[in-house]
Amino acid sequence: MISVRLEDGRVEVHEAPRPSRPPGFALLRMLCAGICNTDLELQRGYYGFAGVPGHEFVGEVVEADTADLIGRRVVGEINLGCCACEWCKKDLGRHCPQRTVLGIVNHPGAFQEFFTLPERNLHVVPDSIPTEVAVFTEPLAAACEILDQIHFPCSSQIAVLGDGKLGLLIAQTLNVYGFEVHQFGRHPEKLRISEKAGVHTEVGSEVPTAAYHWVVDATGSPEGLQQAIRMVRPRGTVILKSTQHGLVGVDTAPVIVNEITLVGSRCGRFEPALDLLSRGLINVQDMISVREKLSDAPRAFERAAQKGTMKVLLT
Amino acid sequence: MISVRLEDGRVEVHEAPRPSRPPGFALLRMLCAGICNTDLELQRGYYGFAGVPGHEFVGEVVEADTADLIGRRVVGEINLGCCACEWCKKDLGRHCPQRTVLGIVNHPGAFQEFFTLPERNLHVVPDSIPTEVAVFTEPLAAACEILDQIHFPCSSQIAVLGDGKLGLLIAQTLNVYGFEVHQFGRHPEKLRISEKAGVHTEVGSEVPTAAYHWVVDATGSPEGLQQAIRMVRPRGTVILKSTQHGLVGVDTAPVIVNEITLVGSRCGRFEPALDLLSRGLINVQDMISVREKLSDAPRAFERAAQKGTMKVLLT
Repeated sequence: MISVRLEDGRVEVHEAPRPSRPPGFALLRMLCAGICNTDLELQRGYYGFAGVPGHEFVGEVVEADTADLIGRRVVGEINLGCCACEWCKKDLGRHCPQRTVLGIVNHPGAFQEFFTLPERNLHVVPDSIPTEVAVFTEPLAAACEILDQIHFPCSSQIAVLGDGKLGLLIAQTLNVYGFEVHQFGRHPEKLRISEKAGVHTEVGSEVPTAAYHWVVDATGSPEGLQQAIRMVRPRGTVILKSTQHGLVGVDTAPVIVNEITLVGSRCGRFEPALDLLSRGLINVQDMISVREKLSDAPRAFERAAQKGTMKVLLT
Repeated sequence: MISVRLEDGRVEVHEAPRPSRPPGFALLRMLCAGICNTDLELQRGYYGFAGVPGHEFVGEVVEADTADLIGRRVVGEINLGCCACEWCKKDLGRHCPQRTVLGIVNHPGAFQEFFTLPERNLHVVPDSIPTEVAVFTEPLAAACEILDQIHFPCSSQIAVLGDGKLGLLIAQTLNVYGFEVHQFGRHPEKLRISEKAGVHTEVGSEVPTAAYHWVVDATGSPEGLQQAIRMVRPRGTVILKSTQHGLVGVDTAPVIVNEITLVGSRCGRFEPALDLLSRGLINVQDMISVREKLSDAPRAFERAAQKGTMKVLLT
């Protein structure tokens, strides 16, 4: 089978044996997979990664212990917990200290024809959701995670910094849940996607000072957090959605003086994301820039790294 | 009258006219004042400060609109709000954007024989509290602020990093409120103070990893926050009590991956602090290292800056 491997910055396509399925695991055929910024960071050496990337996917179950799953289209949660620790017992395997992570930490990812995941990680995709839409379940779950972590009072105004893919999913999600979302970005053509959904958008690098009680930093840039701290009101909350590699300079004085709360936020539950997609409430189609075959993964990675490109799908 | 002035790193004592009292303000005679780390930072140029420092004090009311106040011993909240904005209306004048701050921002401080504060900022000191104890009301209120901001579930284990004055007040306060406090510091003689109160203490620079759901950083050092982030468990909370001037390098990756919450925390209400002191529940006497006359302020600042010195009082 065809398999994509990252090593020392290179994207290589090669033939590999079909993986074997341990008990409790399903063998999946990749139908569609998305390249995300984390994949580009893995390529750059984040986590010292070398291996098969890919954690946003839709697959078809080829083999499984549960006969009913075979032939079904599925998406899958990316954290593989130990099932025994306190986190796993609380259904928070995504914080299990022994976890492996699909395509990121010690578990080969979805950028290959066949791969495995525990059956308990899988969610069957409702027929109403096209495959190219369902592939957004994982990042959309990360957007929904904010609503699992934070209680926003009714009619809250929320600022979203950044107009990348995650920023657009976050802005749309908070908008669907009834909040007044103000999204700040630099690309009018990207902001148009959330604008069509009813989000108020602003283009430019100027942001208002001490203007919002809630600010989400989804810029993906080291400056984003500093900007968010400037934007938030005293006693307000900044939600950190930008994974940065290495040290970020943070002026903690305003955080303390203004008693600001910073909340780190990562992966989320898949159920609310599938619910939003099945109800057609999130526009992901306009975020698809490029479709490439798995065998053209090197070109797909190049395209994904180009400025202005949004989602690149591998099929 | 004698007045202390900081400018360009110098501590100067000079004669100055007694300040006049605007309507609504009280004229106070300084009975006792504490030098705090913020004063040492002001000396070093923090906030570009030049003027009369001093914000921890006990005073005697000399003149006031309210006749009943005259002759009373008082402590005073240090933030002078505008009384008109939304923050002031919510009794949160300490976040008023137009505020001045006693001895810190545009309002002459308590390191002089006479100074002024609005009557509304004053709290009469109960007779049961000695003056040298009451002078700890302001920093103790900052310790209590944590309990106003955070709901710790019953029987929480809380780690406190740092054994400076604020760290000792925080550890003792959380201990009084029934929580299991583990304090980490480098000075056995300082830790003995909270140990006597029932706090579990540990000396050394080694701290356990991912061990506490709640960690308070009161180290006053740039490394403290990084250490606190290492100590806290996934989904845990770090309370920032160390004002740092300038940029602090923070590795935001673990904050996001482990979904950690960071909460900035500053000044607090005086009522709970006076309550704790009047009930004799906080040992502050053992924290007094040095007593100096106001006229010896330069030497007092030198002593306060020496390693191992705890509270320096001016009388």
